[in-house]
Amino acid sequence: MSDAYELFYWPSIQGRGEFVRLALEEAGAAYVDVARRPEAEGGGVPAIMKLLHAPGIAPFAPPFLRSGTLVIAQTANILLYLGPRHRLVPDDEASRLHAHQLQLTVADLVAEVHETHHPIASGLYYEDQKPEALRRAGHFVRERIPKYLAHFERAVAASSGPYLFGGEVSYVDLSLFQVLEGLAYAFPRGTARVVARAPALAAVRERVRQRPRIAAYLASPRRLAFNEMGIFRRYPELDVADGA
Amino acid sequence: MSDAYELFYWPSIQGRGEFVRLALEEAGAAYVDVARRPEAEGGGVPAIMKLLHAPGIAPFAPPFLRSGTLVIAQTANILLYLGPRHRLVPDDEASRLHAHQLQLTVADLVAEVHETHHPIASGLYYEDQKPEALRRAGHFVRERIPKYLAHFERAVAASSGPYLFGGEVSYVDLSLFQVLEGLAYAFPRGTARVVARAPALAAVRERVRQRPRIAAYLASPRRLAFNEMGIFRRYPELDVADGA
Repeated sequence: MSDAYELFYWPSIQGRGEFVRLALEEAGAAYVDVARRPEAEGGGVPAIMKLLHAPGIAPFAPPFLRSGTLVIAQTANILLYLGPRHRLVPDDEASRLHAHQLQLTVADLVAEVHETHHPIASGLYYEDQKPEALRRAGHFVRERIPKYLAHFERAVAASSGPYLFGGEVSYVDLSLFQVLEGLAYAFPRGTARVVARAPALAAVRERVRQRPRIAAYLASPRRLAFNEMGIFRRYPELDVADGA
Repeated sequence: MSDAYELFYWPSIQGRGEFVRLALEEAGAAYVDVARRPEAEGGGVPAIMKLLHAPGIAPFAPPFLRSGTLVIAQTANILLYLGPRHRLVPDDEASRLHAHQLQLTVADLVAEVHETHHPIASGLYYEDQKPEALRRAGHFVRERIPKYLAHFERAVAASSGPYLFGGEVSYVDLSLFQVLEGLAYAFPRGTARVVARAPALAAVRERVRQRPRIAAYLASPRRLAFNEMGIFRRYPELDVADGA
């Protein structure tokens, strides 16, 4: 297993790690989801903590990926590294920069999703910031979901299709699938009416879902379910579909 | 001027564009800060809007950089592109990934700074979300500034110095300078006591400030002042230095 990637991410949520998992799964890459292994075998949360506090490495937060002697943190940075190695992004510089640009906008969206249930502090419980969360989520659902998805719809529609960069799937397509799955889980009412106006994006989502390796992954125990500890959380009171 | 870079960013604030401006200035690169030119000469905010709505390009938001036929958006992505072209990052893959990882963590910090005065919605005025801002800023100053700066301090301290990657300045050093300037402007009390515990980081800041091209830039009219339209805003009520 020494040539397998080692992914370090919280073992009980999809979270940001899921964007990396999807890329590794589509690539058919050998990887160990380290913290999902038993603590007795070097897994669990302690495996994350050990690397977080290692001198000279010290990522700011999970996920991080160990590849040989490299330890790479920041989700989009990990995908920037994996993309060319597994043909999950075209070869030319313009496409690679554009893919990374889109991935960073995905990251911005994901951060805003987290803010909907933690608008005051990530160290507080949702219940301790619920009035603020209700207010923030209203703006997010009414203003931000439409803005982001319209942006991604334009990006897909500008390509020759069916994927963002033509006929071959990219790591960004995989991430867009995950974003749409997450938004539909967390904000089903608010998302449905926006996705209905984004047919190219919706088609990417369905195509990704049906890719053999992704379909196998989604049906496997490796795919964790969405839950209320992750980034995309189903708090029905935050799914404000009316008013816009 | 056709071989000069064209930077597109809001003309009245430092904001995220400043991280790009600092890299271009340190590089001595020829560039036009497009929106700061008169509208009659193709500048102003309309120049940004025109590209934002161009089919097939369409960044999500400024800043973006035009370099020949490329249009590159997302601050960290622009620096990823500029770094190797102007020797603002070492040549080896490990260093480049590490630099980008740190830059993405800078981006996360900058986003959190924006959230301190806009915790509910970027489309609302500060005055319309002030109670929430007070609460969020308290957590930010007490918990997040120390956490981020300790992270960057460790990164600098782990290098052979004086910069993050040894003797040569990198675009990340320039960004750390800007972060410290911004935090000191927005949260002078909350920042001072943290910086006092981050000597390596504080030394990077002073060294960057004294680099000839940066010093010349800071003394020039090209350097905008911090103000209360940008990301780093001085609202004294948000600078909660006590309690931790």
